[in-house]
Amino acid sequence: MADAFSIRFDSVRKSRGPLAWGFDPSGDILDEWGLGDTPVGLDRFVDLVLPVAAETVGLIKPQAAFYERHGWKGIRTLARLIDEARGAGLLVVLDAKRGDVGSTNQAYAEAYLGADAPMRSDALTVHPYLGVGAMGPLVERAAESGSCLLVVTRSSNREGRAIQSSVDGAGCSVEQAVLDQIGELNNELAPGRVWPIGAVVGPTHLEPHLDLAAANALYLAPGVGRQGASPSDVAEVFASCPDRVIPSASRSLLAGPDPTRLRDEASALAAEFVRLLVTERS
Amino acid sequence: MADAFSIRFDSVRKSRGPLAWGFDPSGDILDEWGLGDTPVGLDRFVDLVLPVAAETVGLIKPQAAFYERHGWKGIRTLARLIDEARGAGLLVVLDAKRGDVGSTNQAYAEAYLGADAPMRSDALTVHPYLGVGAMGPLVERAAESGSCLLVVTRSSNREGRAIQSSVDGAGCSVEQAVLDQIGELNNELAPGRVWPIGAVVGPTHLEPHLDLAAANALYLAPGVGRQGASPSDVAEVFASCPDRVIPSASRSLLAGPDPTRLRDEASALAAEFVRLLVTERS
Repeated sequence: MADAFSIRFDSVRKSRGPLAWGFDPSGDILDEWGLGDTPVGLDRFVDLVLPVAAETVGLIKPQAAFYERHGWKGIRTLARLIDEARGAGLLVVLDAKRGDVGSTNQAYAEAYLGADAPMRSDALTVHPYLGVGAMGPLVERAAESGSCLLVVTRSSNREGRAIQSSVDGAGCSVEQAVLDQIGELNNELAPGRVWPIGAVVGPTHLEPHLDLAAANALYLAPGVGRQGASPSDVAEVFASCPDRVIPSASRSLLAGPDPTRLRDEASALAAEFVRLLVTERS
Repeated sequence: MADAFSIRFDSVRKSRGPLAWGFDPSGDILDEWGLGDTPVGLDRFVDLVLPVAAETVGLIKPQAAFYERHGWKGIRTLARLIDEARGAGLLVVLDAKRGDVGSTNQAYAEAYLGADAPMRSDALTVHPYLGVGAMGPLVERAAESGSCLLVVTRSSNREGRAIQSSVDGAGCSVEQAVLDQIGELNNELAPGRVWPIGAVVGPTHLEPHLDLAAANALYLAPGVGRQGASPSDVAEVFASCPDRVIPSASRSLLAGPDPTRLRDEASALAAEFVRLLVTERS
């Protein structure tokens, strides 16, 4: 078996820092960059940004939607991106927010996790609305293959608060209950580790309190930059577990197609996260 | 603009009945049927089942996971399935359970809804964990293009109950709040219609009460057959709005590759739903 994702993340975190570069090639970006909003333009985007990422960060986070909008050709590009990124030593967090029940989750696991998967990712984001307990086949395959399942738990957007802050009969919020279940699964599957299940937690809300340190999980903190969170917001929200957070930035790192500028901006943000989450905290 | 999905559904409901045939070609099915668990086997599955569906039902519901597990070639098959099914007059409900925020939902909308979408479906299932209010671009495109967004609201599986039955500060459950928001959006976008937003509601729980009649929505009721619900369960759960429910059956209609048997079983189930939801209720 490959090393667990938590070990691989710890390794890139120490060498490159924890930042994941979001690969979100919207139609607007493809047009503005002069690449063309077509499957060919999408391929050009990958050819342009991936080599820069391989020199500057330890992880990338492609958002599946931006590949799906080009149909099967877009998925072919996504599969190539994933393969080439992993070949270059990057960890790939596929932000696909999948999630279903039973045999359907088995099929998603076969698509994205483990050696035989056609789009083998290091980590995959999933939705919990059908219950963390329904994710069995995804959990099992993540554990077997050393990959990681990242469950959307607390989002940054205000429209998500109503559901995520609703409470069960014991007064426990939906988001805290999801986090508790993640912790229990990790205790069961890999005692003393922060794996195989992690949580997606937006870095914009400190309140209401979520017990991040207690749940022995890794955290994906998306939306740094344009979506409103600053690197110091990330450091503040994850102050209790700075070594377990993967901040990601997408549009703020895709300001234009000039490779030097792409490299400079990604390097600067990567260095800032090294300072905030690695150097000053270790 | 094409007729609204609600009008197209009403038309197939009257001619063929409301049953949607779930196209869920798991690896086990491809192997058991002797087609081979490969992209070629997947193509054979489509070639075998689609002509039978076009003769017997009004809607099909492909589950995206079973195509994604074959990588981009599987998505190519899915795109072909969708095109050919729509060309044959079937309505296609793509069960992909997508869902994100902002510009990512815009990208999903571009992938699956409207005339320019590479995998243009008549309806698309989505997850509400990030809030129904975050679905703007999907809602807008569904409304503009006459397609339908089906929001997972109450699932059949017991693991989903904890989240879906949690309550907000006013004591309203997550599932009822989702349903209320769907009703409000429909009132706003298409007063007096049951469109453009619908809900996925598992046909196995009557309690706690959900006000299905009041929310002016169409309902997808998945999992008839193997997953435990019978046609009469569907009729009972949706007794207050029998003309607005799309029951779907997947594995129970995929017992073997013999076309005659496939046709006989699908025809029998389709006829049973015509009796329960159309003839006896109109």
